Amino acid sequence: MDLYSGKINKLIEELSSLPGIGHKTAGRLAFYIVSQSEASVKRLADSIIDAKQNVKYCKFCCNLTDSEVCPICANEKRDHRTIMVVETVRDLAAYEKTGRYEGVYHVLHGAISPILGIGPNDIRLKELMERLQGDVDEVIIATNSSVEGETTAMYINRLLKPAGIKCSRIASGVPVGGDLENIDEVTLLRALEGRTVL
Amino acid sequence: MDLYSGKINKLIEELSSLPGIGHKTAGRLAFYIVSQSEASVKRLADSIIDAKQNVKYCKFCCNLTDSEVCPICANEKRDHRTIMVVETVRDLAAYEKTGRYEGVYHVLHGAISPILGIGPNDIRLKELMERLQGDVDEVIIATNSSVEGETTAMYINRLLKPAGIKCSRIASGVPVGGDLENIDEVTLLRALEGRTVL
Repeated sequence: MDLYSGKINKLIEELSSLPGIGHKTAGRLAFYIVSQSEASVKRLADSIIDAKQNVKYCKFCCNLTDSEVCPICANEKRDHRTIMVVETVRDLAAYEKTGRYEGVYHVLHGAISPILGIGPNDIRLKELMERLQGDVDEVIIATNSSVEGETTAMYINRLLKPAGIKCSRIASGVPVGGDLENIDEVTLLRALEGRTVL
Repeated sequence: MDLYSGKINKLIEELSSLPGIGHKTAGRLAFYIVSQSEASVKRLADSIIDAKQNVKYCKFCCNLTDSEVCPICANEKRDHRTIMVVETVRDLAAYEKTGRYEGVYHVLHGAISPILGIGPNDIRLKELMERLQGDVDEVIIATNSSVEGETTAMYINRLLKPAGIKCSRIASGVPVGGDLENIDEVTLLRALEGRTVL
């Protein structure tokens, strides 16, 4: 389709390589971008380059940070002996939003997935094991409740057992406000298995 | 939320200023971008800058183009005496995809909207009037079937009347494959008014 500018087509192509952005959305974004002022377009492009070039992994928890240590690990008020293991930085952000977790995190940047060819060495497990050489009371595994997340949880549990470190898994069950009738069988069974005495 | 990198937050903020991109999607895109190779991130940023800096308006039809004249206006096989007036480049692309329209276009880059404060001078109407000084057989108004699109169509029609140029409006009616029961009343009435004798 050579209806209009090749530069626009190039931009549409680049944008549609982003996750969740199809060709039509990419077109909408591209036309929006060229209609904006040069300064604001430059700001967008600069922030992309800047984020890529200057964002580092926290040397402790592998969270994304501008400095060597992320704000959470640098916070002395937090309980550094409790480590919550999450798959992504977005999961970390989700737990941080609750405002009630006082410990620190470890971001794996993925989960073990034999189907996608992602093994234990492809995620940040080595860094986790190194941290566990220090003083740690509990490792809370908060990977997703998917096949990959469960596999990763089991794998980590098996690694930690010999070290004698307490290892827990966040509860699986009916979401608060969820209607039982709309919830899948596996979740319902998990909720039953995980029932607590009142 | 200072959970992670300020550069990431900056990027999320920039991305969420794009149309249809909320804060959550912007986060997903930002994390995806920093996980990509430096080369591919640079390609994305460059294509944004490149599109903004090098895309021009076609001197005839105001389509977006890399050169002075867009490929459609430069094509001598097309009928330059028939001009289809559209609101956006996306609308032009939609008609081009049909592969059956032989004339040329005029892109207004907007529609008259008193509510949004967009008047006749804010869209590319002056350029259209200049083109009509030349040899033109017909102006087909293909603005959207919205209040703004209809207002713009009526306005253009009133401008063209004195010049004695044939002015038509694309048909409004039931979309092909559409179920009558799911179509709104206004469209059904338009389809009735615009009925053709078989």
